[in-house]
Amino acid sequence: MSNLLQNIHSPQDLKNLSFAQLEKLAGEIRELLIHTVAANGGHLAPNLGVVELTLALHKMFDSPNDKFVWDVGHQAYVHKILTGRRENFGTLRTAGGICGFPKRCESVHDAFGAGHSSTSISSALGIAIARDMTGAKYNVVAIIGDGSLTGGQAYEALNHAGHLGTNLTVILNDNEMSIAKNVGAMSEYLAKMRTAPTYSKVKHDIEYLLRRIPAIGDSVANTAERVKDSLKYLLVPGVLFEELGFTYFGPIDGHNIPSILEVLDKTKSVKGPVLIHLLTQKGKGYLPAERNADKFHGVGPFCVETGEVIKKSVEPPSYTQVFSEAIIKLAERNPDLVAITAAMPEGTGLKKFSVKFPKRFFDVGIAEQHAVTLAAGMATQGKRPVVVIYSTFLQRAYDQILHDVCLQNLPVIFMLDRAGIVGEDGATHHGVFDYSFLRHIPNMVIMAPKDENELQNMLFTAISLNTPVAIRYPRGSGVGVALKTDFTRLEVGKAEQLVEGKDLVLLAAGSMVEPCRSAAAFLKEKGIAAGVVNTRFIKPLDGQLIRQLARDNGVIVTVEDNVLTGGFGSAVLEYINSQHLNWVKVLRLGLPDKFIEHGQRGYLLEQYGLDAEGIAASVEQFIRQFGAGK
Amino acid sequence: MSNLLQNIHSPQDLKNLSFAQLEKLAGEIRELLIHTVAANGGHLAPNLGVVELTLALHKMFDSPNDKFVWDVGHQAYVHKILTGRRENFGTLRTAGGICGFPKRCESVHDAFGAGHSSTSISSALGIAIARDMTGAKYNVVAIIGDGSLTGGQAYEALNHAGHLGTNLTVILNDNEMSIAKNVGAMSEYLAKMRTAPTYSKVKHDIEYLLRRIPAIGDSVANTAERVKDSLKYLLVPGVLFEELGFTYFGPIDGHNIPSILEVLDKTKSVKGPVLIHLLTQKGKGYLPAERNADKFHGVGPFCVETGEVIKKSVEPPSYTQVFSEAIIKLAERNPDLVAITAAMPEGTGLKKFSVKFPKRFFDVGIAEQHAVTLAAGMATQGKRPVVVIYSTFLQRAYDQILHDVCLQNLPVIFMLDRAGIVGEDGATHHGVFDYSFLRHIPNMVIMAPKDENELQNMLFTAISLNTPVAIRYPRGSGVGVALKTDFTRLEVGKAEQLVEGKDLVLLAAGSMVEPCRSAAAFLKEKGIAAGVVNTRFIKPLDGQLIRQLARDNGVIVTVEDNVLTGGFGSAVLEYINSQHLNWVKVLRLGLPDKFIEHGQRGYLLEQYGLDAEGIAASVEQFIRQFGAGK
Repeated sequence: MSNLLQNIHSPQDLKNLSFAQLEKLAGEIRELLIHTVAANGGHLAPNLGVVELTLALHKMFDSPNDKFVWDVGHQAYVHKILTGRRENFGTLRTAGGICGFPKRCESVHDAFGAGHSSTSISSALGIAIARDMTGAKYNVVAIIGDGSLTGGQAYEALNHAGHLGTNLTVILNDNEMSIAKNVGAMSEYLAKMRTAPTYSKVKHDIEYLLRRIPAIGDSVANTAERVKDSLKYLLVPGVLFEELGFTYFGPIDGHNIPSILEVLDKTKSVKGPVLIHLLTQKGKGYLPAERNADKFHGVGPFCVETGEVIKKSVEPPSYTQVFSEAIIKLAERNPDLVAITAAMPEGTGLKKFSVKFPKRFFDVGIAEQHAVTLAAGMATQGKRPVVVIYSTFLQRAYDQILHDVCLQNLPVIFMLDRAGIVGEDGATHHGVFDYSFLRHIPNMVIMAPKDENELQNMLFTAISLNTPVAIRYPRGSGVGVALKTDFTRLEVGKAEQLVEGKDLVLLAAGSMVEPCRSAAAFLKEKGIAAGVVNTRFIKPLDGQLIRQLARDNGVIVTVEDNVLTGGFGSAVLEYINSQHLNWVKVLRLGLPDKFIEHGQRGYLLEQYGLDAEGIAASVEQFIRQFGAGK
Repeated sequence: MSNLLQNIHSPQDLKNLSFAQLEKLAGEIRELLIHTVAANGGHLAPNLGVVELTLALHKMFDSPNDKFVWDVGHQAYVHKILTGRRENFGTLRTAGGICGFPKRCESVHDAFGAGHSSTSISSALGIAIARDMTGAKYNVVAIIGDGSLTGGQAYEALNHAGHLGTNLTVILNDNEMSIAKNVGAMSEYLAKMRTAPTYSKVKHDIEYLLRRIPAIGDSVANTAERVKDSLKYLLVPGVLFEELGFTYFGPIDGHNIPSILEVLDKTKSVKGPVLIHLLTQKGKGYLPAERNADKFHGVGPFCVETGEVIKKSVEPPSYTQVFSEAIIKLAERNPDLVAITAAMPEGTGLKKFSVKFPKRFFDVGIAEQHAVTLAAGMATQGKRPVVVIYSTFLQRAYDQILHDVCLQNLPVIFMLDRAGIVGEDGATHHGVFDYSFLRHIPNMVIMAPKDENELQNMLFTAISLNTPVAIRYPRGSGVGVALKTDFTRLEVGKAEQLVEGKDLVLLAAGSMVEPCRSAAAFLKEKGIAAGVVNTRFIKPLDGQLIRQLARDNGVIVTVEDNVLTGGFGSAVLEYINSQHLNWVKVLRLGLPDKFIEHGQRGYLLEQYGLDAEGIAASVEQFIRQFGAGK
C-alpha cells in the first residue's frame, strides 16, 4: 500500500505530518479498513466514520498519557491501527489476534475496554477524578455516538460530571445512527442543531438586535437582563448539555481534520467538562457503506468491488430469520402481540415486522432497561410484548426483568438472540450467562430450541402462557430442518427423548442437542449406548423424566453453551439433590468460570469441548473412569 | 379521629368535597400517617410531602380507570388510604398486612408495582401505548421524585415518550431530595427553576420588551425570529424537558390543592406528553420530619410527641455502623481508598466518611450503573473504590459489574448492605439473589461475614486483593461481639471450622453462622453431633475443606439466606460434583424459588426455616430419613 501508513508505528509518528499528509493517511487507513473487514468481517461503517476524528485525537493528544475511552468500542479500529497494531491488523477478530473492541490487556493505549453501550462517560469520569486526586495532568476523552447517548447510563454520567465540574472532554460523534437509524427525542434535538446556523453568524445578528433594545424602566429591568441571558439559548445550540453543566462546542464537521484540531485545541483551556458535537457520516469513503450504513455496521466478509457479502455455499436460514417470519405469522393471528427492540431492528429480525405492523413495533434506542419495563407496562393492559434483545445486552436489564416483570408475574416474552458463543465479537458479546442470571428469578420460564421448528413452537407456546418467558437461541444458521407451516404447543416443563441408550443419557440444552446427537453416534461406534434428551425447558425442568432417567440409567451428562456456574447443569444437580437421587452420576459439560475470548464460533466450541467430538471424548473418559449406567 | 376521613371509602368519596374540606382531610390523613408510621415504622417524610398531590389526583381523575404509577412507591401511603385500604392501614408493613409499596395484587388501584427507582415513566408509557392501541380513553399519570430522575432509566423513558408524543402526564415531585439531599446537574437545574419568577409576571414583561424591538432589515429578519423563538426558554423554564418533547408546566406549589387541580385540569387537553413540576416539602406538617427529612425518610417506630426513634433495649451496633467506622480507619491508612454511594450516604454508613474525606467520597445520585463503571474507571488509575449499595439495588448494575469490572478484573470492592431478608420493605427489597447473580461472574470473589469483626477483616482483606470483591451483610444489628481495633487479613478461599461434629456439618454462609451454632447446640441435646463451618468465601469455595468434610463426615448441610437456585448450596453441589464426591449427602437450606413477602425479619426467617430452631428441625428430619455421617 502506501508509504505514509507504513511509517506509522505509534501516535508520535503523526506529530509532524501536515494536514495534507493526514488527509492522505486517512485515505490509506480507509483502504486498510475496507480490505481487512472484507476479509475478516467486522464493524466497517462506524470505523470509516471516525478516521479523521481518530487522526486528530492522536495528533492533538498524547496517548497513552492522555486517555481515550471509546464508547461501545466497535469504532476503535483506527485507534488500534495508529497505536502499534497496524502490522497485526490482518488478524482482526480471529482467535489470538486483534480484538474488535478496545481491550486493556491488548494495549496500554486502550484505556478502558468496551463492547456494551453508554459506559464511556462513566469510566472516563472515573479516570479524570483519579487523575485530579493524584494531581496528575493529562486529558481524558470519551468518544460516544449519538446512539449510545440514548442509554440511560450516559445521562447518569453526564449528570454527575456536570455536577462535579471535572475536566473531561466528551466527543459526541453524531452520525444520526446507533446501529439502525436513531430514534428518540434526543436524536431529534441533535438533528435540530445540525441544521442550526453557525455560531459566528448568529452571534453577529444577535448583537445587532441587542443593541437595538432601547433603554428601559426599572420595572422591567430585571426581565431585560433575563431576556439577554436567555439569548444564550440561541447562541449556544447545545443548551441541553449546557444545562447539565457542560460547555458545548459544535456542531463541527467531523471529517475536516483542521476543524477538529481547532476545537480540540480550544477546549484544552476550558475549565470543567466539555462536550464537542461532531457530525460524521457512517461508512464515509466507501460508497456501498455510505449507501447502506446499517448493513455495513457489522458485516461478514464481502467483495470490496461490489460490496456484496460473500455467501457461504448453501446455508440454512438463521434462527433470527426463522423468528422474523414466525412472529409475523403469530402477530397476524393475535392483535395484542407487540414487538420491542433496543436499536436493533435488523439484527433481531424485527425489520419485516416493523414494516408490516408499524404501530405494534417499538424501537426504544439503546435502552434495554426501558424496553423491559415498557413491556411490563403494556402487559398489565393485556398486550403480549415480545422483547427481542441479544443475550449479552439483556444483562443490562437484569433488575427490570426481576423487579418489573417477574415479581409481578407479567407475561412478557424475551427472545434472547445470539445466546451462547457468538464468535468473533468476543468476550463482551458472548451470551453465556443467561441461564445463570435468569434461572434464579422466580416465575421465569426458560426455553431453548433444538432447531428452527422448535423455535417457532416455543414462541407460539410462550404467547399462550401467562408468565414471563425467555427463549434463547444461538447466532447463525439453524440446523436446516424443513420448516413447518403450522405451530405446535409444547407442554411446559416436558423434555423430549430423542435417542434411547442404556449406558448414559445426554441431557442437552438448545443448540447443544444436535452435537449431542452426533456425539451419541460417535459413542455408539465405541460401543457406548448414549441416549439423547432435548431438554427444551431449562426452567421448569422435566423432573419426571430426570427421575426416570435416574432410575433406568444412572448416568446423566448435561450439555450447555453457558457457564457451568449456576447454569443448566447446576439446575439438574439441584433437582437431583432435592429428590435425593444421590446414586446418579452427573457429568456437566459447558463453559468454564472465565471470560471466553474472540474467535470463530466453531473453533471456540471445539476449544471448550462442546462440539460433537469433544462431547463424545468427555463422555468416553467419564464412562471409563466411573462406569456406565445400570 | 375525624369525621371526614372516616367517610372516605373510595376516591369517589372525594368528588363532592370542597377545597376547605380537602384541606381538613389532608390534616386528618397526616395524623393517620404519623401515628401509623410511629407504630409500625415506614416511609414517613415522603408521604407527608404528597398528601395534597394525592388528594388532588384522586379528586381530578378516576382511579382505577385512570392509572397512577408511583415511582419507587414509598410515597403511595396516601393513595392506599384513599383507595379502600384506610381501615386496614394499621397493618402497614406487617406480615399479611398492607405492603409499604404499590402492589398489583393488593388493589386494582395499584396500576404498577414498584420499590426500585426510576421505572415509572417506562411503565406508564407502556400502559399509555396499550391504551392507544385499543382505543381506550383514560389518563396515565406517573409520579416521580426529582431523586428518581437521576436514574438513567427515567431519561431513557423521557426520550422515548417525547419521541412518540403519546398522551401521558409525568408529575415531577420536586422536594430537592432523593433520600438524602439530591445531587447532580439536573438537581441544580431544577433548583434554578424553583427560584425563577412566575410565568405570568415574566410573560408580561417579555411582551413589553418584544414590542420595543423595532422593525429590522431583511438581513437579520431570520435572526429576529429566532430571537423571539429563543425567548420561549425564558417563558418556559423547563426547556430541558421541552427539548425532550414534553410540554412543561411549573413550578407549582405542591401543597396548594386548588393550584394542583388547576394545572391538572389544564393539562388534560394538551396533546402529547406533559411534565408538571410540583414543589413539595418532604415531611410537611410534622415538625420533626420537616426538620430532618433524611431521618424520617424511612424510619423505625418513634414517639409522636418528640420524634425520637424508639430504641430497642440495648442492641449491638449494626453491620452498617461497624462498616462505617472500619472504612474510615482503612482510609486513613490508604490514601487511594475512595467510597461511592448511590444516593444513600446515611443508609450505607458513609456519612461519616463523607465528612472526614469529602474529596474521596462520591454520591452519584440514584445511579447504580454509573456508580459501578465510575469505580471501574477509578480502579484503572490505581484507586481502590469501595462501592456501597444495598444488595437489592445492586441488581440494577449487574451488567456493569460483569462487563466493566469483572471482565477487566479491576479491583473494585462492592459492599452489599441489607443482604438477605430485609423485613418490612418486602419483596422488592429483599437482598436474596446476590449469591446467584454474582457467583457466575468470572473473577469475582464473594465473602459474607459471620460477625462484626469479620466484616472489618473482610474489608481489610478485600483492599489487599487485586480482583473484584463483593462482601454481603445483613440489615440490622451484628451479633454483638467485642470489636477488635486491629484488622486481620483472611486467607482467600479458606473457611473457618467453628464446631466439630461427627454426624454432619453445617456449612453456613454469613449471617447464617450464628443460627447454625445455636442449631448445633439444639441438635446436641437430641444426640446429634453437628459440626459448624463458617464458609467466609462463597467464591472461591474452600475446596480442601469440603473434600475433607466429605471424607470425614459425609453429610453436609448448606445454610444461606439467599434463594437456593444458583446460590451458595448450588456452589457446594457443583464442587462436589466436579470432584466426584458422589457419596456425600447434601441438604441445602435457603429460600425457595418465589418472591418473599414483607414482614419482620425474624418472623420471615422463622417462616422459611432459617432460624436456629428451623435449621435444627430440618437437619434432624434429614438425619432421621437418610442417616448421619460416617
